[in-house]
Amino acid sequence: MKTIGFAATSADTPLASFRFERRAVRPNDVAMEILYAGVCHSDLHQARNDWGWSQYPMVPGHEIVGRVIEVGSDVTGFKVGDIGAIGCMVDSCRDCDQCRKGWEQFCRKGNTQTYNDNDRIDGTRTHGGYSKHVVVREEFLLHVPATLDVSRAAPLLCAGITTYSPLRTWNVGPGSRVGVIGLGGLGHMAVKLASAMGAEVTVLSRSGDKQADALALGADRLLISTDAQAMAAADSSFDLIIDTVPVKHDLAPYMPLLDVDATLVIVGQIGPMAEPNTVPFVMGRRRIAGSPIGSIQETQEMLDFCGRKNILPEVEMIRMDEINAAFDRMERADVRYRFVIDMASLAA
Amino acid sequence: MKTIGFAATSADTPLASFRFERRAVRPNDVAMEILYAGVCHSDLHQARNDWGWSQYPMVPGHEIVGRVIEVGSDVTGFKVGDIGAIGCMVDSCRDCDQCRKGWEQFCRKGNTQTYNDNDRIDGTRTHGGYSKHVVVREEFLLHVPATLDVSRAAPLLCAGITTYSPLRTWNVGPGSRVGVIGLGGLGHMAVKLASAMGAEVTVLSRSGDKQADALALGADRLLISTDAQAMAAADSSFDLIIDTVPVKHDLAPYMPLLDVDATLVIVGQIGPMAEPNTVPFVMGRRRIAGSPIGSIQETQEMLDFCGRKNILPEVEMIRMDEINAAFDRMERADVRYRFVIDMASLAA
Repeated sequence: MKTIGFAATSADTPLASFRFERRAVRPNDVAMEILYAGVCHSDLHQARNDWGWSQYPMVPGHEIVGRVIEVGSDVTGFKVGDIGAIGCMVDSCRDCDQCRKGWEQFCRKGNTQTYNDNDRIDGTRTHGGYSKHVVVREEFLLHVPATLDVSRAAPLLCAGITTYSPLRTWNVGPGSRVGVIGLGGLGHMAVKLASAMGAEVTVLSRSGDKQADALALGADRLLISTDAQAMAAADSSFDLIIDTVPVKHDLAPYMPLLDVDATLVIVGQIGPMAEPNTVPFVMGRRRIAGSPIGSIQETQEMLDFCGRKNILPEVEMIRMDEINAAFDRMERADVRYRFVIDMASLAA
Repeated sequence: MKTIGFAATSADTPLASFRFERRAVRPNDVAMEILYAGVCHSDLHQARNDWGWSQYPMVPGHEIVGRVIEVGSDVTGFKVGDIGAIGCMVDSCRDCDQCRKGWEQFCRKGNTQTYNDNDRIDGTRTHGGYSKHVVVREEFLLHVPATLDVSRAAPLLCAGITTYSPLRTWNVGPGSRVGVIGLGGLGHMAVKLASAMGAEVTVLSRSGDKQADALALGADRLLISTDAQAMAAADSSFDLIIDTVPVKHDLAPYMPLLDVDATLVIVGQIGPMAEPNTVPFVMGRRRIAGSPIGSIQETQEMLDFCGRKNILPEVEMIRMDEINAAFDRMERADVRYRFVIDMASLAA
């Protein structure tokens, strides 16, 4: 299938229009016309080869919502016209212990990433959501609940599940005391989701500037992390802290906020962190962990949860040809809270 | 009660003989003649004020085994002649949520340390096990099972419980894949205890020198952490790693060894750790945590477990006046695996 998208062709050139071929629909494949694609900070990292494994040309985008236009002969779960969604992975070995228990995000052989990866069957490059069409195996396509506004749903596929999954893994529910560090794409979803789960949510921020936004998103309060007195008063008062800050930083101010056996979960920074001091770890049996996306089953559960609770990201809609300006603004944290590309803006 | 011990009188002078007064037995107190005292690395740190909160004179020692010589009028659990033991704490607020659930090690107001602390009732300085007698409130005195060799039991009170507690917290049992980093006082106890719980135990060491020792202590194998090929082969193969290394070090070689959701527990180093990289945390939902000692109830459970399984530390018996030489040897890691002071060597 011939299609069009926007691709990075090197680490230091802007994304530009790119015509390419999607594979023909295999028996278990579904083809979609992409309606909306979210813009994740990791798209920028990969387009610019910040992690060192980028191959070009690369069509980024792993927050995809579209309409089914064709189904393979063995497909049973989707029909033409359905609204489907794709997140960060499009396949896995489906045979290892992790895949067998439905945890494809931890596939022992590595799952297949939605873009900047190779298809497991024919070896062709995978390409992401900054494009007009996509072909994906049925098992990795999600159903978008009819109650959700499709124009805003795309960021749920990465920002949503990346925050939903740790909230579920660490059993957040009514009365849980949850902290959220950073109020960007991931952070604002963490606030909405934790709040919808009944948690008592605190946004941790370096200043009070975001107080009104935090409360509007559903937080119960904002705690200013540079206010030593307020931080001391919050000692040992959190069950879980979701750390969405996407750059190297110091965890020292946050560790004492964790109660005994509580965990700070890193979902933002992928790389070095400042040198920790073990005292708060040892003295309070405090923990840190990381968490990636969720499984396919958990992603569907998240979408259904958002459908029931009408939880959607706050988005700013852009045209496909505004992507380079959007990357620049994203680098300056100048987005509230997620860019979504309206794929109708991409001329065929 | 007049008694004698060995005290540090400043951060940079050797421990020396010291006559001092123990408090008179209160209604809920038990007085013991100390038979044996273990020598913990933290005794050295505190004697030398490495942590900055030392007050002098200080009688170190929080691995204490003795014989009861007097009981207060309200004491019901001990009688004269019983063998009792004291670990790292001798009191707590007994009223906060942590104390009420029996987790005195996490007392919100801070538990009272066995030495280098102040008694909660009369404010006098607490002094440790490097002495002839000790007075302690009944609730913080443990029973030593009759089956245990009293001359070797003392290190169970810190090295034992500090490794037993995380093994229990992280549910180690038959078939658990446990790694132990460092084969000193704590490490050798971690090997013995995990092995007795039915775990498959691997000692992680920078060279193969300790292979025979590791196997003799009950480990199933030794993994050489500088052998890149062996380390790669062990990727994602541990459920829990107990890290007993008591100095700043790099966790990067060990993190990939953890399976999904597995934890590396720091029990050795109290202070800075090398800068971590979050990639293995995020990609495998791996975790690090710290763990202190255990509760009084858990310490008794550990002693009873060791009594049933006849688990004892490997010790080297010294005289009280050999303590400064023992500190020097401990600094060079020249002890297999724990010094115990025979308190009969301390002339009254």
